[in-house]
Amino acid sequence: MEVSILGAGAMGSALVIPLYDNGVDVKLWGTEYDVEILKKIEKGEKHPRIGVSLPEIEIYYPEQLQEVLDSDVILLAVSTDGVLPVFEKIKDKVDSTLITISKGFLEHGKVMTIPETLWTIKPSLKEKIVAITGPSIAREVANRMPTKVVFSSLGDASKIAKYFENEYYRVEISNDIIGAEITAALKNVYSITIAWIRGYEQLSKVEMSNAKGVIATMAIKEIARFVEAAGGKKETVFGLSGFGDLIATFRGGRNGMLGELLGKGFNINDALNELKRMGVGVIEGYSNAKKAYMLLKQLEKDGAITLDKFPLFTNLYNVLYKNVSVKEALSKIFS
Amino acid sequence: MEVSILGAGAMGSALVIPLYDNGVDVKLWGTEYDVEILKKIEKGEKHPRIGVSLPEIEIYYPEQLQEVLDSDVILLAVSTDGVLPVFEKIKDKVDSTLITISKGFLEHGKVMTIPETLWTIKPSLKEKIVAITGPSIAREVANRMPTKVVFSSLGDASKIAKYFENEYYRVEISNDIIGAEITAALKNVYSITIAWIRGYEQLSKVEMSNAKGVIATMAIKEIARFVEAAGGKKETVFGLSGFGDLIATFRGGRNGMLGELLGKGFNINDALNELKRMGVGVIEGYSNAKKAYMLLKQLEKDGAITLDKFPLFTNLYNVLYKNVSVKEALSKIFS
Repeated sequence: MEVSILGAGAMGSALVIPLYDNGVDVKLWGTEYDVEILKKIEKGEKHPRIGVSLPEIEIYYPEQLQEVLDSDVILLAVSTDGVLPVFEKIKDKVDSTLITISKGFLEHGKVMTIPETLWTIKPSLKEKIVAITGPSIAREVANRMPTKVVFSSLGDASKIAKYFENEYYRVEISNDIIGAEITAALKNVYSITIAWIRGYEQLSKVEMSNAKGVIATMAIKEIARFVEAAGGKKETVFGLSGFGDLIATFRGGRNGMLGELLGKGFNINDALNELKRMGVGVIEGYSNAKKAYMLLKQLEKDGAITLDKFPLFTNLYNVLYKNVSVKEALSKIFS
Repeated sequence: MEVSILGAGAMGSALVIPLYDNGVDVKLWGTEYDVEILKKIEKGEKHPRIGVSLPEIEIYYPEQLQEVLDSDVILLAVSTDGVLPVFEKIKDKVDSTLITISKGFLEHGKVMTIPETLWTIKPSLKEKIVAITGPSIAREVANRMPTKVVFSSLGDASKIAKYFENEYYRVEISNDIIGAEITAALKNVYSITIAWIRGYEQLSKVEMSNAKGVIATMAIKEIARFVEAAGGKKETVFGLSGFGDLIATFRGGRNGMLGELLGKGFNINDALNELKRMGVGVIEGYSNAKKAYMLLKQLEKDGAITLDKFPLFTNLYNVLYKNVSVKEALSKIFS
């Protein structure tokens, strides 16, 4: 069994560990952004983003992409923005199982999840794509901490899951790949709203845990509504892919940082500039909120839902794209 | 409109604030445990558990219980253990709306929720009992921080809700009082298991957020299964009464403190002794876990469920009552 991982960032590199522990041959290819990391890995130094040294595996540099495409499984672990550019380069050669771990929406004629976009471009992959979702902070996977994720596919994900699964990396199988992907993408978007409260708490020196409970409940309900309208199952939202991931990443990473600044009273432009100044990279939840809005509008046009069933999302969209303040948004949400 | 609140602890006293702000006449009666608090309130000092001074309301001491029972609404805000003793003293006189806010199970012939127990004792109250659940940390309610709770009743809770509701205290109406009560009681029980992970993290100096996501997801799923078997609605579990409350009280208060000690390797007796030494009062989740187990056994006998669908609860029960270590329990949960 041979798995090629494309992308040597946190998650791609972390997944080397369970695969290696399970005796799978792993090839790790890095993008042009990963070159410094690849050098460190080759020298046996710790991976800067997950804090562990990787075992001795084969390392491939950006120009060697074509050399890793014959494996039984290709695991696409680049950023959401990197998915289409890398897929363009590999799509003619890849006909094996393709695993995706990036979370977000892509635009290809219309807004779709990542798996849908890939199998729209290459229909023969439809049952060969497996998406991994669920609570899985890369650093913890790399440290062999107990983790349980969801492998979703329209085909049979269990055939592949057995090569990943071991005592610390558990796998649940699902066929609701649309539901899982929308859930995971929206979890990142909505985590901006939960972080508003944290920012507001810091600004006003108060505690607002009750409000966090209310916002998180609204978020989960709206995500469930969204997923059902798009043809997924709401159970997926209440499971590991939604609720479980929300709990594990409650502070929300970069999306959380953006949300906190907004909650502290920054307007969106100042918040984005502040994050840039701090050296924080792309905020995927920000651009995904726009794509989620476009997808909602599509679903509304199709008659599947109406936008007024998404008051939290609408307020989030207004804060991110219409320069509405969090204070005003919160007063509408709690009215 | 006149509301008598029985119990001057954190939640009973906090609810004075929205009622007073809404122009409702409030009488606050305290138990023999509340006498020091009542004196402070009368002197205009801050309530020690919620950190605010209450407005000028009528205060009643333990021996004056019979003087407050003519109000339009009686709000029972004593501890779970205090519910039956106080109810015995008031039941012949009370025929108005009775609101319960204590969370837990009672034994009265068999194990039941608090509202069921009360209307079993006095059937004419069946549609007059309203239960409040959802994310509502008392200190935040008292500080007028945004809160949204659920008023559940087999009767019409909205008639009463309007006297509580205002811009910071929002109310959702439900008729699933059984579901809401079981959810709230079990949330406290299961929060012990989420706290295991925190204790284990501290002991081992590792981060295990993924495991928290897995445990919390198992908890919510098992609570939903439990609620459905008992005749409630699982939507209630995914709403404010379950998920929302879990988020707001994620550290889990006293139940969380017990869970953390167990996660650090204390056995149950040592953990309970340590908490006693620290001056921490009754751990309601501990005794409620036993009652929940009895209720599960009843439901199993009735053919509504089988205990093997509750692996997290079974492991929790074994840790609390069969001296199994958290380490062993976690290895079973993640196997």
